[in-house]
Amino acid sequence: MSTAHLSCKVVFQPSGKTRLVPFETTISQAAALAGLAIHNPCGGQGTCGKCRVIVHSGDCPPSSHCREILTARQLERGARLACKCQIQSDAVVEIPFESLIDQPDNKILTAGESQAVEVSPAVYKRFFNLPAPTSEDDISDLERLARELDLPLFAHLPVLRELPGFLRENAFSGTALLRNGDQLLGLEAGDTEDTCYGVAFDIGTTTLVGTLIHLPSGQEKHVVARMNPQIPVGDDVITRIQATRQTPPKLAEMRKAIIGTVNEILAELAAGEGISIESIYEIVLAGNTTMQHILCGVSPAALGEVPFPPVFRRGLALAAADLGVTVNPKGVVFVFPNIGGFVGGDTVAGILAASLDTADKPVVLVDIGTNGEIVLAHDGGLMATSTAAGPAFEGARITHGMRAADGAIEKIWFADGDVRMRTVGDEAPVGLCGTALIDLTAVLLDLGVVDITGRILEDGELPESLPEAVRKRIIRDEAGVPSFALAFPEQTTSGEGVLLFQRDLRELQLASGAIRAGVSIMIRQAGLTVDDISEVLLAGAFGNYIRRENACRIGLLPDLPVERIRFIGNAASGGAKMALLSGATRKRAEAFAGKVEHIDLSSDPDFQMEFGMAMMFPGEEF
Amino acid sequence: MSTAHLSCKVVFQPSGKTRLVPFETTISQAAALAGLAIHNPCGGQGTCGKCRVIVHSGDCPPSSHCREILTARQLERGARLACKCQIQSDAVVEIPFESLIDQPDNKILTAGESQAVEVSPAVYKRFFNLPAPTSEDDISDLERLARELDLPLFAHLPVLRELPGFLRENAFSGTALLRNGDQLLGLEAGDTEDTCYGVAFDIGTTTLVGTLIHLPSGQEKHVVARMNPQIPVGDDVITRIQATRQTPPKLAEMRKAIIGTVNEILAELAAGEGISIESIYEIVLAGNTTMQHILCGVSPAALGEVPFPPVFRRGLALAAADLGVTVNPKGVVFVFPNIGGFVGGDTVAGILAASLDTADKPVVLVDIGTNGEIVLAHDGGLMATSTAAGPAFEGARITHGMRAADGAIEKIWFADGDVRMRTVGDEAPVGLCGTALIDLTAVLLDLGVVDITGRILEDGELPESLPEAVRKRIIRDEAGVPSFALAFPEQTTSGEGVLLFQRDLRELQLASGAIRAGVSIMIRQAGLTVDDISEVLLAGAFGNYIRRENACRIGLLPDLPVERIRFIGNAASGGAKMALLSGATRKRAEAFAGKVEHIDLSSDPDFQMEFGMAMMFPGEEF
Repeated sequence: MSTAHLSCKVVFQPSGKTRLVPFETTISQAAALAGLAIHNPCGGQGTCGKCRVIVHSGDCPPSSHCREILTARQLERGARLACKCQIQSDAVVEIPFESLIDQPDNKILTAGESQAVEVSPAVYKRFFNLPAPTSEDDISDLERLARELDLPLFAHLPVLRELPGFLRENAFSGTALLRNGDQLLGLEAGDTEDTCYGVAFDIGTTTLVGTLIHLPSGQEKHVVARMNPQIPVGDDVITRIQATRQTPPKLAEMRKAIIGTVNEILAELAAGEGISIESIYEIVLAGNTTMQHILCGVSPAALGEVPFPPVFRRGLALAAADLGVTVNPKGVVFVFPNIGGFVGGDTVAGILAASLDTADKPVVLVDIGTNGEIVLAHDGGLMATSTAAGPAFEGARITHGMRAADGAIEKIWFADGDVRMRTVGDEAPVGLCGTALIDLTAVLLDLGVVDITGRILEDGELPESLPEAVRKRIIRDEAGVPSFALAFPEQTTSGEGVLLFQRDLRELQLASGAIRAGVSIMIRQAGLTVDDISEVLLAGAFGNYIRRENACRIGLLPDLPVERIRFIGNAASGGAKMALLSGATRKRAEAFAGKVEHIDLSSDPDFQMEFGMAMMFPGEEF
Repeated sequence: MSTAHLSCKVVFQPSGKTRLVPFETTISQAAALAGLAIHNPCGGQGTCGKCRVIVHSGDCPPSSHCREILTARQLERGARLACKCQIQSDAVVEIPFESLIDQPDNKILTAGESQAVEVSPAVYKRFFNLPAPTSEDDISDLERLARELDLPLFAHLPVLRELPGFLRENAFSGTALLRNGDQLLGLEAGDTEDTCYGVAFDIGTTTLVGTLIHLPSGQEKHVVARMNPQIPVGDDVITRIQATRQTPPKLAEMRKAIIGTVNEILAELAAGEGISIESIYEIVLAGNTTMQHILCGVSPAALGEVPFPPVFRRGLALAAADLGVTVNPKGVVFVFPNIGGFVGGDTVAGILAASLDTADKPVVLVDIGTNGEIVLAHDGGLMATSTAAGPAFEGARITHGMRAADGAIEKIWFADGDVRMRTVGDEAPVGLCGTALIDLTAVLLDLGVVDITGRILEDGELPESLPEAVRKRIIRDEAGVPSFALAFPEQTTSGEGVLLFQRDLRELQLASGAIRAGVSIMIRQAGLTVDDISEVLLAGAFGNYIRRENACRIGLLPDLPVERIRFIGNAASGGAKMALLSGATRKRAEAFAGKVEHIDLSSDPDFQMEFGMAMMFPGEEF
């Protein structure tokens, strides 16, 4: 029988891409058919060795070129030149990182709007099956493993102590847990390559979000969010910094609290996926500078005083045990690099997620959280600043504000003579979340209930055209303090209703004004105008759900066409996920983080005036 | 008054070399006068910047070249181009490592016979006085320190946690403890640059030797030796390896014992110098592969079984706390790289001490200890082996053997009709040390009391010419077992005398034969003959005191002219000291250790015959 009609099933690792190819297809061709491009600088002549792959199973005999370019040991371990070797059976072929061309087709999108990264995590596992020592081959245990994995391995003392017993109890076979291609973190019996998870954390001032990711595939498995347990100390970073200045033991207390919550999230993620917490090997943390200092137990006290210098700027590679996070005992942690005192790892992660470091037109990134971080990319450079927006957008400091949980009013619009709304889970309204706060303010501005200074008008000042149903929602307490009722007290189980008070509008004005002033100053300092900005990217846990028209209506952003505004979701989480999935991306972040120009808004002579003006709602339509 | 006649006193750091120079001498010239050569690739044109130095005090204004080559901040911190700047007052000038030409004149000899190394320890301190943060200069604390020290610093979490408080409590001034030019190990208030000690350890199977060194000057301060506390488990490495195989908890027990003795030596060294144990910041450990495994708590079990593979080969940089050695809590440890299962860090240290890696003629190094290590350098390559000599030379397994302590007979010769001897401290004889054992054997061979097979002759076989005094020393017990009395029972407080028994001679034959067979096989495997060997270097704690003629007389070494034999003292200690004093030398050791050819004597087909023949004493003179 002719074999020429046979098809061979080829599985490419680590992507898992699978393809049926004709008998005797070269590995390079098979990879191309699977959508993977292998380096080929010599044009497939078999002379450069840049297309080296590893055949884990299947018939794929070495060509004469292989014998010239590869060592006998490499050949024994399955190394082949992809351009010259033909597939003659079903096969499993690993394309090492360095042989793969980084092209869009190779990329696996992480969930959300973050950029594509090639899945090549800093922490990963490799199954091995070592030849036992012989008199001709008596190298050390660690070198034997390093040779097999083709990595320049080192190991800390505990792993070194474990190594000889492990190898001999497991017939010199098992799975190595590796970091950065040179550190042996641990050893596991059997083939556990696939049991390898990581968690990307966005450590917000108000909210912590953890995303569980299956590292070998890059698949996002679960997301868990929790409130930051430091909120009782203060709902913004300034208050927390001041707490550590006045009462130094507060640092340890806050650290313990946040690590505790991180651990709760980890446990919940593991339970949700039905995996052991020991299957999590790395966590990546991206937070603002203060949060990153506190969770590392490094005092943020100096961030409470001009000129607000951080203690560390570069990213930190830590042992999970040293930080107190409960993952696999051999697990590790990466803390994002900071940019400056108030522009932290979350912003670096955001820049990654938005690919701002490679932007070719002026782009503004606004990450709306308790700290509003603003990044402007232009002319190959990056400028970044932060502005204390306060937690209004996250529902805090708003009388009936809440996070987007069940019963939170998340969208408000005007139709058929009344204010309409939608709640999370279509439950009875319990409170108001940030997006609805913006919607409502825009509606009230349009209806003439609120003027450009943010004042709820007196009955006599209201437009006559105001529908009766809306008019009835403006209620006043005994002291005459006005509020706008989305749900009347008797409609809610709390008996308080869901009301928007005058002071809530003031909080919104502060938050919105801080961000708008920051964006305006950044654009001006860069010598640009709003018209030069090709795109404004809105990020933040809540940014995803903002109605762009309403954001423009309340003046959250400078006046620019709505179509130039794009949402990129939780950019800090997105960037953290990218860093979890790609050691190279992590290095890229380290590289650009040191070069971002850190703008101190408060030192801009026009800041106060800009801020004051930005607190006013746009008034043309009124 | 003309200033031209003034002399300026210039102190160069870190060497401390001081020189009076004429007013307006350039820094380069002043350094040359002080015996220090500064790089000068552009020929003193002020254009290459390779002669950068730092003026810590004194008048030495920057030249126009400085302003072009150096940044304003570098100038502020005292950086100058040595070729272009003139000294106008007494001054303190630091020549950074990279600006100094590594020439013999720059070298400071470590004590003993080890090679000269430039004093540039991996662990060192630098005093700093940082500018406080300002709005224009708001970089992170760690970067501020790194910038001042001109080093790419990183720090582990505990130091990072300490940093911000330390800087602010100490007006941004203090002393940084550094490792390898990039790691910030710790911080100390005030200027403690000079309080910085290290200890070099030779971890022998039988003896541990620690040498206290003042790191900034390279001066050797004290030496303390102790017996290896693992001796009760077994007096050679094989017994100890077998113990861990049969009773795994023995590993922890032996580790605890040896670390305990290391700590005792450290305490004794500190007390001897009148310094705090906290003034010791680094220890360097060089021992054979088994000892290095055990003291790291890494099982040497595999070293007890063909093909004897070690667990690790490369050197280890550890935290002192992780190893359990009591020095400064921020202190660190360097464990020498190994070569193979039975050729360890002590041999690597010996190669360093003897500069064998740069030998240009065939040279043999024999390190005589419980394991005899033999290295052959030829044609730019290195071969190494070890041979189980046993502890005879260190006084063990010899009935009345002892170390070279008070009362040990250390030298024996024949004169005026009797055997003469000298004891350590000129005390009454207590026992026999290794050197005297060789002397005595040589004397007994010459006198015809012992034949070439090592047998003490019967009365009837003794030469008639044997002086009566000597004849009387040959005594026999009730069973007729002969011994040779150096001190008769009634002459010693023990009542046992100091006797050489037949079985002691057998131990000596085993030890001597193992070494001689090893040397012979190495030379043969290299394709050389004894005549090709330009030099035999004898090392070992006891090697220093051997009488070369007697060593040749008993056949410890192949037959070659005595003048080609040279003693280099405790080479393992010497190499450990070099590694302690020079980070570059440590790297050199790492580099060549991986390339030494590891010879397994037992796999040589002629080993048994060579060994058997080498156990016979040379007989020509008999």
